[in-house]
Amino acid sequence: MTVTDPVQNLATLIRCPSVTPAEGGALAALEAMLAPLGFAVTRVVMSEPGTPDVENLYARIGTEGPHLMFAGHTDVVPAGDEEAWTHGPFSAEIAGGEMYGRGAVDMKGGIACFVAAVARHIESHGAPGGSISFLITGDEEGPSINGTEKLLQWAAERGERWDACLVGEPTNPERLGDMIKIGRRGSVSGAITVHGVQGHAAYPHLADSPVRGVIALAAALMDPPFDAGTADFQPSNLEVTTIDVGNRAVNVIPSKATASFNIRFNDTWTAETVQDEIVRRLDEAAADQRLRPGRAPVRYELKWAERPSHVFLTRDDRLIASLSTAIETAIGRVPKLSTTGGTSDARYIKDYCPVVEFGLVGQTMHMVDERVAVADLETLTKIYQTFISRWFGDAGA
Amino acid sequence: MTVTDPVQNLATLIRCPSVTPAEGGALAALEAMLAPLGFAVTRVVMSEPGTPDVENLYARIGTEGPHLMFAGHTDVVPAGDEEAWTHGPFSAEIAGGEMYGRGAVDMKGGIACFVAAVARHIESHGAPGGSISFLITGDEEGPSINGTEKLLQWAAERGERWDACLVGEPTNPERLGDMIKIGRRGSVSGAITVHGVQGHAAYPHLADSPVRGVIALAAALMDPPFDAGTADFQPSNLEVTTIDVGNRAVNVIPSKATASFNIRFNDTWTAETVQDEIVRRLDEAAADQRLRPGRAPVRYELKWAERPSHVFLTRDDRLIASLSTAIETAIGRVPKLSTTGGTSDARYIKDYCPVVEFGLVGQTMHMVDERVAVADLETLTKIYQTFISRWFGDAGA
Ligand SMILES: [Zn+2]
Ligand SMILES: [Zn+2]
Repeated sequence: MTVTDPVQNLATLIRCPSVTPAEGGALAALEAMLAPLGFAVTRVVMSEPGTPDVENLYARIGTEGPHLMFAGHTDVVPAGDEEAWTHGPFSAEIAGGEMYGRGAVDMKGGIACFVAAVARHIESHGAPGGSISFLITGDEEGPSINGTEKLLQWAAERGERWDACLVGEPTNPERLGDMIKIGRRGSVSGAITVHGVQGHAAYPHLADSPVRGVIALAAALMDPPFDAGTADFQPSNLEVTTIDVGNRAVNVIPSKATASFNIRFNDTWTAETVQDEIVRRLDEAAADQRLRPGRAPVRYELKWAERPSHVFLTRDDRLIASLSTAIETAIGRVPKLSTTGGTSDARYIKDYCPVVEFGLVGQTMHMVDERVAVADLETLTKIYQTFISRWFGDAGA
Repeated sequence: MTVTDPVQNLATLIRCPSVTPAEGGALAALEAMLAPLGFAVTRVVMSEPGTPDVENLYARIGTEGPHLMFAGHTDVVPAGDEEAWTHGPFSAEIAGGEMYGRGAVDMKGGIACFVAAVARHIESHGAPGGSISFLITGDEEGPSINGTEKLLQWAAERGERWDACLVGEPTNPERLGDMIKIGRRGSVSGAITVHGVQGHAAYPHLADSPVRGVIALAAALMDPPFDAGTADFQPSNLEVTTIDVGNRAVNVIPSKATASFNIRFNDTWTAETVQDEIVRRLDEAAADQRLRPGRAPVRYELKWAERPSHVFLTRDDRLIASLSTAIETAIGRVPKLSTTGGTSDARYIKDYCPVVEFGLVGQTMHMVDERVAVADLETLTKIYQTFISRWFGDAGA
């Protein structure tokens, strides 16, 4: 197996159907790439009552410092409507210069390129002047309970210490080299259940429509905006991701409606203050009578999902400069230092070492027809290879 | 079988699980009650491509005029959450002076009482001084395609003519004798599908949330009110009866959302003008940017459900006076003449003869624990019996 070729590496990984939390063969495939390069590979199953066990992987080459960690995940979100894909979501088919597949950019592609970059670095320099490790989880797209956070604790308890980390998430909005992530917004999710009183649609006064209630609550969560953004962060944004009633009887006012939401918040807020604001909006909307004239406040329950993700911002001149220069060298573009986009496991890593994120172009992530330009895989591999050389101070090829 | 007892009649009917469009044995039970009284009973199956066949019943006693029709339905809405019922929805159990069961008031109870009233009238007067017929459908709570409308056509083609009709729907909001219905609002239903673009909740600008769109459209349908009511009718009212997205992934903005609605409209509108107003509201809301700043208008499809029900108002002094006096005689209360509540099959009957509606107390109709006071069954039977005597001019008992 020629792991210096990121295209082959990625095809191998895409063909493993590792829909979160399934391992799907992806970590086994990664182990088969890393072990021959000289990495000591450990597969670690993390578990917690009430959640599925999840497989993770930690691999290190070298025993001395400085120690560079590459972090990421092999699990992927579900394919969605498989019929709607131009090429199968686990096919890794190449068409029009692009490889199709779930995880192509988020983020099996990033892993495929870093493996190739390390292999090429070892080919040209021998073992790195320090240590390189892969910290790869299978629980990033799911609840993230049995993943990076526990894997970091597990490694730290065994004496592992890192000087810097690169996370290979797809950070570029449009073109490779657009953007390095040096921080991330926080994230809080919740679910609302609105209780009404069932009845006939022609006798609305004898019933209490939970649809009216859930519309009022959902609208208040999304409008007005939470803030206008800060110096380092874009505006906070809340999406109501689903509303469900499930009433098939056209003449019946139902008894219950549910909604779920997710907010990405900036450093205007902490997880706690944003939760307080959400409760304030819900209570205010519950009492609003625009859609429910003369009615008592909406009766609702709010349940917070999982643990909140906290907002963070990283500064490490050597780390950022090594990466930024590598990008400029490879493609002549100076990347923007940004805090946009989703949470990533960088929120856990930042407690152990400085962390930045750079990977592929994220446009198709989580969508039908997720795909990556084959040319981008080669370019990203070159960027990663140059970054490794620069960060270890082996600037000459 | 003593069909002079409405309680026994109703227990028999409730125990037939005639959830629309199933016959469930209810029409067979009704035939077994009417035939021994001297009625010529015909069971008529109506069918139409794309809809289930539905059983109906027409029964007549007498060959001369005047001809009084009693109209109603034996089909019932689904039981809903059966676990939530205090007594089984098809048990006809009596507890605390009330009989429980789906259809207790809507409207197996009305049928049970009219059968008992006719039996008592025949017992005391012999055959009526004219004709009495039962026009009973099994397709009132469903799409109403294979029911009363077709049954009326079928009977009219066979030469049947009627002078007046009483529909036994539950017309009383709180107490027996509260209200006669002399007209009905119209009803129009529709379903909306909102198309968005799927994506990650952290990249809302790359997606287009259909949840935002469906909230905007649904809210605009319910607010502001369509009108403030008219001399004969209460205000028109629209209920969004369901909103559904079905997205289980908390970090994913979905691609589609659906909603259904039903409007009950008064004589401010026709079915056509109210549909125009709904389209106008949807188009205006689709372009509203409050929840969707900077976005192109919501892409939605609107599908009108079934055929609209038209609004109507009936005046027939003899018919209304016979019924009103019967109520006053039985319980000393003058009923209100009203046009409130849902549509009923009276909307079809009004094209053949004057029609009024009077039945039980509707408070629990279509709800869990639908039930009727046993005492009300006896009182309604007495009212119906007096009405029959008065309408035929046989005022003495
Ligand atoms: Zn990812
Ligand atoms: Zn009914």
